[in-house]
Amino acid sequence: MNTSVDFAVAPPRTIVENWMRHFQDWLCYRLELADGSGTKFAETPWEHAGGGGGRTRVLQDGEVLEKSGVAFSAVWGGLTEKVAQSLQLPDRRYFATGVSVVQHPRSPRVPISHMNVRYFEAGNGEAWFGGGLDLTPIYVDVAQARRFHEQIREVCERHHPDYYLRFKTWADEYFYVPHRQETRGVGGLFFDRLTVGQDGSFEELFAFVQDVGEVYGRAYQAIIHDTRALPWSAREKHWQLVRRGRYAEFNLAIDRGTRFGLETGGRTESILMSLPPQAEWHYNLRPEPNSPEETSQRWLRKGIDWLHADAGAPLQ
Amino acid sequence: MNTSVDFAVAPPRTIVENWMRHFQDWLCYRLELADGSGTKFAETPWEHAGGGGGRTRVLQDGEVLEKSGVAFSAVWGGLTEKVAQSLQLPDRRYFATGVSVVQHPRSPRVPISHMNVRYFEAGNGEAWFGGGLDLTPIYVDVAQARRFHEQIREVCERHHPDYYLRFKTWADEYFYVPHRQETRGVGGLFFDRLTVGQDGSFEELFAFVQDVGEVYGRAYQAIIHDTRALPWSAREKHWQLVRRGRYAEFNLAIDRGTRFGLETGGRTESILMSLPPQAEWHYNLRPEPNSPEETSQRWLRKGIDWLHADAGAPLQ
Repeated sequence: MNTSVDFAVAPPRTIVENWMRHFQDWLCYRLELADGSGTKFAETPWEHAGGGGGRTRVLQDGEVLEKSGVAFSAVWGGLTEKVAQSLQLPDRRYFATGVSVVQHPRSPRVPISHMNVRYFEAGNGEAWFGGGLDLTPIYVDVAQARRFHEQIREVCERHHPDYYLRFKTWADEYFYVPHRQETRGVGGLFFDRLTVGQDGSFEELFAFVQDVGEVYGRAYQAIIHDTRALPWSAREKHWQLVRRGRYAEFNLAIDRGTRFGLETGGRTESILMSLPPQAEWHYNLRPEPNSPEETSQRWLRKGIDWLHADAGAPLQ
Repeated sequence: MNTSVDFAVAPPRTIVENWMRHFQDWLCYRLELADGSGTKFAETPWEHAGGGGGRTRVLQDGEVLEKSGVAFSAVWGGLTEKVAQSLQLPDRRYFATGVSVVQHPRSPRVPISHMNVRYFEAGNGEAWFGGGLDLTPIYVDVAQARRFHEQIREVCERHHPDYYLRFKTWADEYFYVPHRQETRGVGGLFFDRLTVGQDGSFEELFAFVQDVGEVYGRAYQAIIHDTRALPWSAREKHWQLVRRGRYAEFNLAIDRGTRFGLETGGRTESILMSLPPQAEWHYNLRPEPNSPEETSQRWLRKGIDWLHADAGAPLQ
């Protein structure tokens, strides 16, 4: 990763924006390699009315990745009165840059994944980082979830002793579907408004966010490697379509990021690239007791200590 | 329809609740007949924590109707502080009864349809009716939309000279998807808080709502009759799955009824029976200029005078 930036010549927003562009390139490259079919990302550049714009990259119909979205944006302008109030900002000018990622693999044995890193500067000089990542297996694999959480914990601990537990707990709350009383998957990290000066220096917080992006790329590439060849049948595919329906429910009805984007006039196709390629809804579908589907659903709960989870042990 | 109720012996809420039950029976009977395959509705009875409950009826995998939901409920109890405030009600006690209907036909030539009738009594004695119906063709058929609007206009005019235009315009606003800049379909009627004493007598408003329910049943049965045998191919099926995705977007991200139900702890499976059996999302999908798909989308606009619409004439 590019860490040799000259802080004397570029303002922080330029440094972060350049890294975000670089990170999008790096991640798309790794995902194309992991997919392995030669299928490439297609890019749509777009402009924002207020200023700036983005480049949305989507790979469709790969071998492993049925629909993979990696979106970069850097936009600025004036927030609406309502949004400025909800963020408790006295000045409506803003700059925002980030990368958002969602992967919908073809195989029900390869989990859906999501990652976001973002940086925001308000007109009053306040600046903060936010981000997160989470894993949504169709069938929860406890050992896989444990390894995923171990990797992100290791990254968190490099930066702050409290980060893992704090942001893992935040993810449990954020990626929760109240009307289903279940989490979206096995969680990960979520954090917002890590404020420069208050929660760490610009360099410290930026280094953490870079590491979050990087560990996502590495961890998900390893998961693809481990799961891509696992066999599956029509039964697992059916369950995948049902779970993709739940994913669409979260994104459309619950996710604050999606709602914020749609309500503030973001580019619809870039925001909704996170939706699954297909989904199904069956009325009152209940998996058989003790079936793989029912057992998997039991793990979709807040507060599980994935670092010590054991497929054979009872849930906390 | 049952109009020989003795108003002297039963309070209004009982009269409306009984009609709602009867209307659910009547509509399910007609839909089973229209489907014609012998497939029957399955019923799930449920209870509401505060008091009352409902009976949700779903017919799945019929010949015409792939997924048909007809839900009755009559519930009472205490509104949360937040809901009471949003409804501007000083007293939190309430009674609510209604029937909600969504039809997802198998053929892309048969439109999706929706209907709702409802009655609400607040603790302070205020009582009102609400309701609506709308048609969502996969391919807009202008003559069909005109006949549909003619039928509902005729019913409206029996009750009030302003009702059709007022409630048709309200439906254009309600069934609108801002992030797609398109209407859900060719519209219909939407009305809320038609208050007893203010907007008409109990008998007048109740008679209107009964007629709205009844014209939905008749009009949709006629549409099924006219469209069920029309041929279609993989191309039309694909477009149906895309349009069903838009339907899910409206219901999950926009529809105030769905959001209200999910946020106030309604029965999730009854609320989300409105979701399509399958849906698809393709990044940046744009129909070919002047293709049937693109031509159809041009009609998904507010303010079209369907009573005088002509497939050959330019849009207003």
